[in-house]
Amino acid sequence: MTAYRTLDIEGWRAYLASTPDLASRLGGRSEGWQLREVSDGNLNNVFLVSGPLGGLCCKQSLPHVRVDPDWKMPLTRTDFEARYMRAVAPHVGHLMPALYHFDPDLHLLAMESLTPHRVLRGALATGVAAAGFSARIGEYVGRAAFLTSWRARPFEAVTEQVAAFAANTTLTRITVDLVLTAPYRAGCKRNHWLSPELDDIVGELQSDPQLASAVSRLQERFLTAPQALLHGDLHTGSIMVDGDDVRVIDGEFALYGPIGFDAGLYVGNLLLHAAANPGRLDWMCDEIETFWRHFERNYRTLWSERGRSGDIGALLDDSGQQQAQVAACHAIMKDLTGFAGLEMIRRTIGYAQVSDYDARPNRAERAEAMREALMQGRALILHAGRTETPGALLDLITL
Amino acid sequence: MTAYRTLDIEGWRAYLASTPDLASRLGGRSEGWQLREVSDGNLNNVFLVSGPLGGLCCKQSLPHVRVDPDWKMPLTRTDFEARYMRAVAPHVGHLMPALYHFDPDLHLLAMESLTPHRVLRGALATGVAAAGFSARIGEYVGRAAFLTSWRARPFEAVTEQVAAFAANTTLTRITVDLVLTAPYRAGCKRNHWLSPELDDIVGELQSDPQLASAVSRLQERFLTAPQALLHGDLHTGSIMVDGDDVRVIDGEFALYGPIGFDAGLYVGNLLLHAAANPGRLDWMCDEIETFWRHFERNYRTLWSERGRSGDIGALLDDSGQQQAQVAACHAIMKDLTGFAGLEMIRRTIGYAQVSDYDARPNRAERAEAMREALMQGRALILHAGRTETPGALLDLITL
Repeated sequence: MTAYRTLDIEGWRAYLASTPDLASRLGGRSEGWQLREVSDGNLNNVFLVSGPLGGLCCKQSLPHVRVDPDWKMPLTRTDFEARYMRAVAPHVGHLMPALYHFDPDLHLLAMESLTPHRVLRGALATGVAAAGFSARIGEYVGRAAFLTSWRARPFEAVTEQVAAFAANTTLTRITVDLVLTAPYRAGCKRNHWLSPELDDIVGELQSDPQLASAVSRLQERFLTAPQALLHGDLHTGSIMVDGDDVRVIDGEFALYGPIGFDAGLYVGNLLLHAAANPGRLDWMCDEIETFWRHFERNYRTLWSERGRSGDIGALLDDSGQQQAQVAACHAIMKDLTGFAGLEMIRRTIGYAQVSDYDARPNRAERAEAMREALMQGRALILHAGRTETPGALLDLITL
Repeated sequence: MTAYRTLDIEGWRAYLASTPDLASRLGGRSEGWQLREVSDGNLNNVFLVSGPLGGLCCKQSLPHVRVDPDWKMPLTRTDFEARYMRAVAPHVGHLMPALYHFDPDLHLLAMESLTPHRVLRGALATGVAAAGFSARIGEYVGRAAFLTSWRARPFEAVTEQVAAFAANTTLTRITVDLVLTAPYRAGCKRNHWLSPELDDIVGELQSDPQLASAVSRLQERFLTAPQALLHGDLHTGSIMVDGDDVRVIDGEFALYGPIGFDAGLYVGNLLLHAAANPGRLDWMCDEIETFWRHFERNYRTLWSERGRSGDIGALLDDSGQQQAQVAACHAIMKDLTGFAGLEMIRRTIGYAQVSDYDARPNRAERAEAMREALMQGRALILHAGRTETPGALLDLITL
């Protein structure tokens, strides 16, 4: 066992040189490898390495939040990311980078380097994202959700994974606090917003008993509906694109939960982009429809093909299976709607906000876009329980 | 570590003599202790031991089902029973026997000896059960369910237990197969019934697509709604009574699941008793009302007192909490109704049937009682989704 240490550029060079499988992917001599740090998310160190034969993306947990060294954090988050990638890769193929290496002592991963891919959020900001990217994300969520669910495999195979990911408490705590609770709590120091412009609406969000009840129902759904293995943080910063090559990254928040959580975070981020870029509302609504159409097609096709492989639904005939699919999709859309609303609010007044608002040319317009997003988020949360179809979801859009 | 061996009477005598804490509870010299085997359930060996100072109930896993040595089974089931007792004992006090000792190598337990208690099913059969016993069971389920739930404690404390009990796959497999699936599958060899008298209705139950759909929804509830730590097998054979001293035993099926599962199995067994003893229908309906009243009172009182200790519902004000309690009780009653129906059917045509039917004086009357129970079970399953109150449940009774 190797004691943990945080690797810097030369540390990585030496580590990769001493790991034959990785060194041979890079090719040539280690002195000639190019390494650069590209850490961008809030949590981990990330380096891109290239050699004569190929490239690697290298990621390591730090003993604290990367952007806040005073916020201490266990090192195991890359362990859960590796476990997630191994669990989902057989189901989603090229929609995820290939994992080459995981070191449980140094808590580091080496995976396929995605070049010249861009993070989707940035590609949207700079206008280089090609319309229709949501088809791949719908396919990803539909396949990963069905094939890790109780309908696709004996319950013993599922409970083993449920138990393993139940230990991912550090990152689940972040979701519980920052997505599901803190934004609705007055005086919580992790919230921040454009003040005084948004003080009134934030005050409303934090003192509305009806909203608190709806948020509580979503808390319950998140923690007590282990339908499938979730990515757990599927926003536009966890997706890389290059033309129509779309990849999902950063699975360290993985856990078993309601399928509508992954879908809702994704849709919430599309709507945040629309709030910040009003001229793109139609496009984002198209992306939502495209996402759902591909999600539903993949999810239901797999269910029809393999829906008697598990312990739930093995008794259904074809007609019963179709009815159950419709009911399941309605329930997923309800969850999606609520979680999309939570994501819009927490990304506007919570701890980790989104850069999409930088598209607004000045503070007054930024405040206006944020206000629109907050009202949209509230409407989605309050109406989630009655929203069963993509048409009903789009009818709720007020941006 | 001691290698596992199955203890016979003299094996137990030696084991207890060499375990000072247990020997001192019995008192005197080991040669004078009285031991007798009282194995009664399907799975384990059980011995009662008495000495000058007190008694013990001693239980050990066998490497197979006790009543079917060809059905091999891992030894860990007493491990889960011990874990369950330790988790629930602080919440239910005297409603469970005290656990004195657990040996993970020999997979044995020693607990408080319940004398002169009788198994409730037997006490009902012989007419010595005192009306109102269901008050204690309602209290037990209400307290255990609330205090092991996500509303009473931080999610990290709950997921740790969810993960631990997720490993109880052997006994959960029995529930999934024998309660939730096999009775609805034509040709399954584990089913048996009074034939030819019941052939027609069994054929109906096994070829009804609407029933299969409703059963599938209950399969989904059982596996994907980890609301609280369940006993997992709460029938009238898992309860001992002596006057108004009521104790729950045999927690080896424990797992996290929907609260209505424990409640529904219990109510299903009361209704089976009524089906077999038509003159007791009013009494059993009274017991169901008593059970629910005490369940709801305990569950809601604890929620009002401690319902902001967990991560679900911490944002609710008093009025929001009251509304959430009502909604939760409605949802629990729906589950209760469906699982009660499943229990009535599986205990009449499945692998493990109930002795209550022995009360009928002849085969024709037994067949008639069983037919009534099957029709009642089917009605409960089909109407479960609309049954939100004890009044609505009792309106469904056709016995």
